[in-house]
Amino acid sequence: MHDYLKPDPWSIIEEGFDKDRVKSSESIFSQGNGHMGQRANFEESYSGDTFQGSYIAGVYYPDKTRVGWWKNGYPEYFAKVLNAPNWIGIDVFINGEPLDLNTCKKVTDFRRELNMKEGWYRRSFTATLPNEVMIQVNIIRFLSLHIDEVGAIRYEIIPRDADVEVKFHPYLDSGITNEDTNWDDTFWETTELTSKENRAFIESQTLKTNFQVCTFMESHLFLDGQHLNKNPSEVKNKLRIGHEFVQTVKNGETLTLQKFGGYTVSRNHKASELVDAAKKSLKRAVDLGFESLLEQQKQAWAKIWDTADITIEGDIKAQQGIRFNIFQLNQTYLGKDSRLNIGPKGFTGEKYGGSTYWDTEAYCIPFYMATKNQKVARSLLKYRYNHLEKAIENAQKLGFTKGAALYPMVTMNGEESHNEWEITFEEIHRNGAIAFAIFNYFRYTGDYSYIPEMGLEVLIGIARFWHQRANFSELKGKYVILGVTGPNEYENNVNNNWYTNYIGKWCIAYALQQLTKVKDGFGEDYKRVIGKTRLTDEETAKWQKVADNMYFPYSEEHQVFLQQDGFLDKELITVKNLPKAQRPINQKWSWDRILRSPYIKQADVLQGFYFFEDHFTTKQLEKHFDFYEPFTVHESSLSPCVHSIQAAKLDKMQQAYEFYLRTSRLDLDDYNKEVEEGLHITSMAGTWMSIVEGFGGMRIVDDKLSFRPRIPEQWSSYSFKINFRNRIVKVTVTKEKTEFSLDGKNEMSIRVNGERVVLHPDTVVAV
Amino acid sequence: MHDYLKPDPWSIIEEGFDKDRVKSSESIFSQGNGHMGQRANFEESYSGDTFQGSYIAGVYYPDKTRVGWWKNGYPEYFAKVLNAPNWIGIDVFINGEPLDLNTCKKVTDFRRELNMKEGWYRRSFTATLPNEVMIQVNIIRFLSLHIDEVGAIRYEIIPRDADVEVKFHPYLDSGITNEDTNWDDTFWETTELTSKENRAFIESQTLKTNFQVCTFMESHLFLDGQHLNKNPSEVKNKLRIGHEFVQTVKNGETLTLQKFGGYTVSRNHKASELVDAAKKSLKRAVDLGFESLLEQQKQAWAKIWDTADITIEGDIKAQQGIRFNIFQLNQTYLGKDSRLNIGPKGFTGEKYGGSTYWDTEAYCIPFYMATKNQKVARSLLKYRYNHLEKAIENAQKLGFTKGAALYPMVTMNGEESHNEWEITFEEIHRNGAIAFAIFNYFRYTGDYSYIPEMGLEVLIGIARFWHQRANFSELKGKYVILGVTGPNEYENNVNNNWYTNYIGKWCIAYALQQLTKVKDGFGEDYKRVIGKTRLTDEETAKWQKVADNMYFPYSEEHQVFLQQDGFLDKELITVKNLPKAQRPINQKWSWDRILRSPYIKQADVLQGFYFFEDHFTTKQLEKHFDFYEPFTVHESSLSPCVHSIQAAKLDKMQQAYEFYLRTSRLDLDDYNKEVEEGLHITSMAGTWMSIVEGFGGMRIVDDKLSFRPRIPEQWSSYSFKINFRNRIVKVTVTKEKTEFSLDGKNEMSIRVNGERVVLHPDTVVAV
Repeated sequence: MHDYLKPDPWSIIEEGFDKDRVKSSESIFSQGNGHMGQRANFEESYSGDTFQGSYIAGVYYPDKTRVGWWKNGYPEYFAKVLNAPNWIGIDVFINGEPLDLNTCKKVTDFRRELNMKEGWYRRSFTATLPNEVMIQVNIIRFLSLHIDEVGAIRYEIIPRDADVEVKFHPYLDSGITNEDTNWDDTFWETTELTSKENRAFIESQTLKTNFQVCTFMESHLFLDGQHLNKNPSEVKNKLRIGHEFVQTVKNGETLTLQKFGGYTVSRNHKASELVDAAKKSLKRAVDLGFESLLEQQKQAWAKIWDTADITIEGDIKAQQGIRFNIFQLNQTYLGKDSRLNIGPKGFTGEKYGGSTYWDTEAYCIPFYMATKNQKVARSLLKYRYNHLEKAIENAQKLGFTKGAALYPMVTMNGEESHNEWEITFEEIHRNGAIAFAIFNYFRYTGDYSYIPEMGLEVLIGIARFWHQRANFSELKGKYVILGVTGPNEYENNVNNNWYTNYIGKWCIAYALQQLTKVKDGFGEDYKRVIGKTRLTDEETAKWQKVADNMYFPYSEEHQVFLQQDGFLDKELITVKNLPKAQRPINQKWSWDRILRSPYIKQADVLQGFYFFEDHFTTKQLEKHFDFYEPFTVHESSLSPCVHSIQAAKLDKMQQAYEFYLRTSRLDLDDYNKEVEEGLHITSMAGTWMSIVEGFGGMRIVDDKLSFRPRIPEQWSSYSFKINFRNRIVKVTVTKEKTEFSLDGKNEMSIRVNGERVVLHPDTVVAV
Repeated sequence: MHDYLKPDPWSIIEEGFDKDRVKSSESIFSQGNGHMGQRANFEESYSGDTFQGSYIAGVYYPDKTRVGWWKNGYPEYFAKVLNAPNWIGIDVFINGEPLDLNTCKKVTDFRRELNMKEGWYRRSFTATLPNEVMIQVNIIRFLSLHIDEVGAIRYEIIPRDADVEVKFHPYLDSGITNEDTNWDDTFWETTELTSKENRAFIESQTLKTNFQVCTFMESHLFLDGQHLNKNPSEVKNKLRIGHEFVQTVKNGETLTLQKFGGYTVSRNHKASELVDAAKKSLKRAVDLGFESLLEQQKQAWAKIWDTADITIEGDIKAQQGIRFNIFQLNQTYLGKDSRLNIGPKGFTGEKYGGSTYWDTEAYCIPFYMATKNQKVARSLLKYRYNHLEKAIENAQKLGFTKGAALYPMVTMNGEESHNEWEITFEEIHRNGAIAFAIFNYFRYTGDYSYIPEMGLEVLIGIARFWHQRANFSELKGKYVILGVTGPNEYENNVNNNWYTNYIGKWCIAYALQQLTKVKDGFGEDYKRVIGKTRLTDEETAKWQKVADNMYFPYSEEHQVFLQQDGFLDKELITVKNLPKAQRPINQKWSWDRILRSPYIKQADVLQGFYFFEDHFTTKQLEKHFDFYEPFTVHESSLSPCVHSIQAAKLDKMQQAYEFYLRTSRLDLDDYNKEVEEGLHITSMAGTWMSIVEGFGGMRIVDDKLSFRPRIPEQWSSYSFKINFRNRIVKVTVTKEKTEFSLDGKNEMSIRVNGERVVLHPDTVVAV
């Protein structure tokens, strides 16, 4: 486990230079602003081990898939998030010697800080170069929230023992590669490199997808704060364009390069106007100036934190963890663009292709719904509505008919782009999460409009899928769902996964209910949707029959629903009794051994109890938690949060706390020894849920907001805010009491006693 | 379906040139002699669509695997049969114009004949070249059984309307590629090209595996039968070496090039002596001369046919089919080398990597056992004994311990080289087929020596695997085997596949039985084996417990064993009721749809009833056949033969005949539209079984050979020979009677009445 990061409530801080940590820190100190993102790569060249990555939201490449044996229905491509041309590069030469931390004779006072409160990243160090020259370097970088096509860098050099000649080579480089390619194909074509005075532009486009991108920069040189107004010379080759600034700097003077750069993209501008758009963005940024832009950055982040922050007193690691999670989620997605979604690694790496998974519906929507304007969640729902046609096509490929829709497991544009049959074709419960998100959105926001306008069509497509996917078992006299993979991906091709059957039945029932509701209240929409979908009473009667007669595997002996048929045939040795040397099983065991074991990667039956908590008694939850928790290995980043919430509900506070800590510091402490590949962005929303829904016990009950606050022993207090139907509810929990306020007023204080507190929507009064 | 091949009892004949058929015919007219094999590629250059292939037995390449997502335990490589340097090439120029059937103005009288009786391939045609010159061409080619490193070509050209200048360029070419590569890697390195007078040599080696190969040739020119004793000039480039012969030929004269060529390989010679060995082989061949070598070829094939032939009267297509199967099996494997085995496509294509599958034990061994000296079958058994250590290592990778052995699904050298988890890790029944082959070998040959010498160790490793692979189900109070793929690969990761459980139990019981037998009769061997395997009574007691308490899924309602747990939950629509447009389902359906369907790719429960027929009553067989046959789609080439044998046993003669025809003419009629990729060699042994075990009803009962002859309505008679314990039994069945003879004597004639005839081993007298 990592422990090189300093605990701090608001910043991530690394001290001391260690080459082995460079790739991990590049992930952890990543920056993003919703439009683009950047691993914490050095500006100056670095010859050591590094993973270079700069990403533009929504710019992807359909990489040719790689499979062992082709299966019918596999998608032709796997969408890849693209490493985009480098705009941060600044090569530095001191008396002609390149600055490269990998070759320096000595590096001292190396320090990185990611200031989450204000949204900037600072790196500083003192280096002795191979030519014995010693310099101090301070760099600050941020990706502007204010002008989201622009990032800014202030690169300072102070000679520490002699006068020196400094050369700065700020540059743009489109000669970049993806770490994650299947066939080492080239993803970009560079069409033009131009530069004028202190500005440069690279125009390039992605192959196949034809996204046009202009990568741009503008640089300014300052000596001890004095703008030098130098015109640099151009340095250019086939895929790289840069400038050279040369300046003699006296010992102790500060030479500063300010570099503004970023991307304009054909997703947001006419392809022919990308350079002009770049110039406009640059002008706005330069006119403001570095300091003002940074000031605006601080203000923008202050605004985000105002509703999103969670404070924890008495446990600085927990505090740092939750803020890191909230910060990264906001760096990744801000809800401005309904064509975008949230990739499991955000802008911090390439694995999982930057594509959309069911993580969005199951984990991220609750976070965005409660910490932002409800339009953000609606935007995420609209994303799926826009992909309905593709989901119908996807289902057709698998043999379904008449408008049945199967949403993809992994997608960039609505098309499936994953190709393991056990996932792509069988992990169909994802369809349920999309319907559940619609239900959850209305439950939380009270905004019904999405359903008649868009959601009903989605619900019909999904209900049709479940109806067709189930088949009648003569033996059982019930409808069964065969050959699926549940949320626990450590089981493949099982029959009657309880979670899948349950959510399948629920989807049909919910669709039928919404049909009636829309028919009664939104006649025009109803007519339009029925006309479009050609839904008949005959068909809905068939749906009803399937929903009414769904089979659920159950053990009388254990009084639990079984994860799937045959679960009790396994050798039921609990995780506690599994030798440590065998774990994590996904690294130690072959796949067949994992599959026939009872071990659960992430909440499966318990995921159902999480979504549909109010369908079951607390006693039932306890039975299931006690049965399944001991077999759960939590080898998915999405796992501990659900268990944390349920442990809190069951008053197993120590367990809840341990799960919380594991999820909130997963990346900071690098539990899975893979943080160098990127951060686990989507599961960070689960961490937020662990506090708000777990310890805070936040629920919507009968259209009302309610809480059941508990506090871990290790904390002295914690507080969070919730945007509930456009009112801000603040909850502060201490060991003695819980305080509520509404829009900063109407304060109320109660004792914590493990009882549920239901708040009136308009006033903070317990009922 | 193909119908361009002329029915003929002894030859495969194609008439007329059709460019679209070239690749298919290249497969069908393939030649082999056990040491090497060759698709029926043209000698002269051909610019049309072609699949070039020349293969050397046992020379393979460990191609880097290609997977979607890596799983622990996957092998690093997939062994590929290698397209070897081309030795057959003869470029032809007529008045300077290259002969290329793809560019000729006119091609008439095109005819191919593969003479199976005598083991040669002839191609002839009359062509008008772009330069308007008309020539007649006759080519005969064979791969010598007598000198198995050598093949011979006689290439005749007869000008048909003018005197012409003919240039022959016989050449060797190592600039070849594999059609089937995962990463377009290069597989060969060429080290030297040399030529002297009319001989040439290419020395090359395979990358990674370092097989050294010398490809060689020697050419002679004749005019109207007169040896011209010309010394050709050398034509050489980086990867190709050849000779040029130039000759003026008068209209009507015959210019003949005789070319001898082939391979010497470091598997059989010292690497430093490959060229010398090549020279020796060439000298032997040339000293004999083309005609004598061909004469010897005819004699060698006559000897093979003497025991292996099956005659069918009254049904020429059936006759041609069975001979094609027997011929191809003998071209592929002759049992001379226990390091070799039988790849599913033999020397006729690249798919399935030329590796060993369980096809060998389940299908090929019975054929070789009955048609050749029993040493051949013993050699195949020894192959697996030699791989026992690797099988133990393979099991260790999957978490098994203490000498448990899991034989690979696909292998070249004993290491697993397949990488779909559902096959590699889960299709474990293959282990059973290997034990069954040991049992079957002794049952048939009466040679027990293999078991104490080698087999017992194999049986112990296999029994250990099954013991460890089963687990106790508290729920069932029985041992279960979870997460397997049965012979029916249209089910993956199922629990309690009946066939797997049954053969697993049987393997343990058989190993225990042989332990006792070896202990009693072969004390020294027993001591050695027990010492080596450290087997204890405690361990065997545990085996016994698993075998005694194995679970078998059974339906009381249908009175059949169930293919696996949950089979009856499927939508049980029979194949008959499946729309034709949906078939073959492996081309029309996505994998999940196939998996949850009831459709059976190849015999699964019925495979068990085939292996262990005597464990069940005919009534039971009928119940199971009637239950499973209607769901079987026979989309494996290995499927129809088992059904044919069982249909014959159940007196469903029309069905048995249809299955027979389908299996015997699978490639000739190209049922699966894929013959251009190569022939289905291993399933050809199943065709032989369909006649001998199906219609002939051959069985070993209580150590005696027995028959229950039936004849399909379509045939007037059929006959086959069996080498049973070194005695040749001939069986001739007509509609009226069956005749038996022993070693050509002791004839006996009985009426066919559907009764079983048991023969004394020493005399043909029914008991």
